[in-house]
This record gives sequence, structure tokens and C-alpha cells, in this order.
Amino acid sequence: MERLQQQLSFILEIDKLKSIMRHTILIDRSRRENSAEHSWHLALMANLLSEYATTPIDVARVTRMVLVHDIVEIDAGDTFAYDTAGIVTKKERERQAADRIFGLLPPEQGTELRSLWEEFEAEETEDAQFANAIDRLEPCLLNANTEGGTWKQHSPSLDKVMVRMNPVKLYMPKVWPVVEKIIDEAVANGWVKA
Amino acid sequence: MERLQQQLSFILEIDKLKSIMRHTILIDRSRRENSAEHSWHLALMANLLSEYATTPIDVARVTRMVLVHDIVEIDAGDTFAYDTAGIVTKKERERQAADRIFGLLPPEQGTELRSLWEEFEAEETEDAQFANAIDRLEPCLLNANTEGGTWKQHSPSLDKVMVRMNPVKLYMPKVWPVVEKIIDEAVANGWVKA
Repeated sequence: MERLQQQLSFILEIDKLKSIMRHTILIDRSRRENSAEHSWHLALMANLLSEYATTPIDVARVTRMVLVHDIVEIDAGDTFAYDTAGIVTKKERERQAADRIFGLLPPEQGTELRSLWEEFEAEETEDAQFANAIDRLEPCLLNANTEGGTWKQHSPSLDKVMVRMNPVKLYMPKVWPVVEKIIDEAVANGWVKA
Repeated sequence: MERLQQQLSFILEIDKLKSIMRHTILIDRSRRENSAEHSWHLALMANLLSEYATTPIDVARVTRMVLVHDIVEIDAGDTFAYDTAGIVTKKERERQAADRIFGLLPPEQGTELRSLWEEFEAEETEDAQFANAIDRLEPCLLNANTEGGTWKQHSPSLDKVMVRMNPVKLYMPKVWPVVEKIIDEAVANGWVKA
């Protein structure tokens, strides 16, 4: 019963991810997106777009990876892609969050989910590279369908956007033309600075 | 490219699930839960609690099943568990929604996701029975941690709650004592009518 209690503590704790707000705006423009529903969206995208991976990926593993990839934000908050100061302290804040949150689980389950999160962050394996590409593609699609979304709000430079979207170019090259077209239009509309 | 456009149409369409509100209240009590973040929660629960299934289940399949199980609500709306009138028309409303929404995808992907949804609804396979148990457990845990949540608001009878929670008793019997204790306390607190 102690094992089940540990699992339930974690399950209750992660309810908080539903209140961690990202900058991205929903397509119906009613509000910003939260990290839990964002993770759900990525999980389905990973299942639907796996054929565009350049190397064979383990879809079930990638699905679990994107389901847990933002859980540390419960303590560390969402660090916006173009927040230069926040990114400096992000790693240490997220490491402490991982210790606490994954530590709620029975050890072998906590270790497995934490490893998946670390793998996502390191972006070195093929599964993690594909997961990162999906994680960049989703807000790009939402921006394109909300008249510029966070791009319009923050006017990032084209250089920064290209670096940010690079995982799609590298790990889903067949999807890249769609993203390239979106970015071209964002520049033409003045949402992204050329 | 037409295939990718079909996949992206579906991916954009399902963004709407983030605005379909359930009756369940988040543990921080800030608002009601939406069906997208609920689906994310179930997907992680399925991965963490699979050891409590009475028969071996395919966790990756159950994960995909819970990720898609509420998508029809984009057109059909969320039908509250204790809404007797709504439940009469639910099947037909959801069938039409499935035709339209899964029909956006390339045929073989649409058919696969639709079959998973139908399997979840039929509750006949072991994967679907476990997925249904998880789907009942999650709002029960949220109610228990929000001073009665939807039970307090709607005061369902104990009979109805027991029928509703029966999949947990049948398909996750080792988790049932936790739910039984939660229901006992809900009755003691007057949230559920004895």
C-alpha cells in the first residue's frame, strides 16, 4: 500500500502542471496554453508524425518523454524561449524540481521518468531529438494560426527564431518546408524581425 | 504534401479540446478541468499504474487510447456523468463527431484512432477496461482533494457513484480500497447521498 500511496502522491502533485501557463496562445485565442494540455498535444503529434523522423524512433518512448518533459515546471516555472536571463538559471532550478517531484514516486518509476526528462533535455538520442522537434513545431503552428501569437507580442529576430526551430529542420526535414513558409509569412507580417 | 496537410489539419483541429470544460475542479480550485489536460493526466496514470491491471495490458496502446478518448467532445461536448438526459443522445452526437474529426486524417491513421476510441467506449477489451478504470479514478481523486468537488455540487446518490466507479473495482481491484475509503468519507461528509 505504501507503493500505491507514493504513486498517488505523484499523480496528485502533477495536477499543478495544469496551472503552469506558457506564452503560446490557443487557436481560439481565449487564453494562454498550459503545460499539461501542451504535453497532451505533443503526445498525439508524436504518434501522428513519427513517419517524418529521419531515423526509426520508439514512438511509445517518445510519447512518455513528451508526457513528462515539462513536469519540472511545477517548481521551476515555464522559462520563455526568448527569456535570456531566465535561461541562465533554468538548469539548476529544473534539477532541484526533478529531485523533489520525481522523488515522490517509487524509486524505479521515479528514476525512469527522470531519465526520460534528462534525455529530452540533453537532445542527444534520436528519440529526444524527435521529441524536441515536435516541441518546437507545436507553438509554431499555434503562432501561425493566431496572427503571429507570441511572435507578434515579442518580435524576436529571425536569427533567434531560426535557432529555436532548428530541431524541426534537422530531425523532421520533410516537415521543414511548412515551417519555413510560416516563418517567411511571419517576417512578411513584421511579427519576426528580419 | 497532401498527407502532411491532412495530419496538420487534424493537429490544429484538436487544439479545441483545450477549451472543452469538464465538471471536475482542479486541485488548486482555480477552475474546472478541460478535456485535453485530463487526457494528459490519464496517459501518465496509465503508465504509472499498469501493474494494477488484473490482466496484462499493452501500456502503449492504452496510452494512445486515453489520449484520443475525449476528442469527439470537440463537437459533442462533455456529457456529465450524472446527466441522464444527455447520456441518451450522447452516442449519436459522438458518432457524428468521430466521422468529422477522425475523417480529417489520412485514412489509415483516422481509422486507427477511431477504432481506439470505439474500443474505449465499448469497454470490452482488457486495454479498454483498464483505460476506463483510469478515467473513473482521476476525477474521484480530484473530488477527494477539493472537498467533494463535483460530488458536493451535485450530491449524486451512493448507488450512482458505485456504478460509476465500478470499473476501478473490477479492473484495478488492488486500488479499490483507496476509492472505497474516499467514497465512505464522501458519504460521511454528505457530498454523496447514502
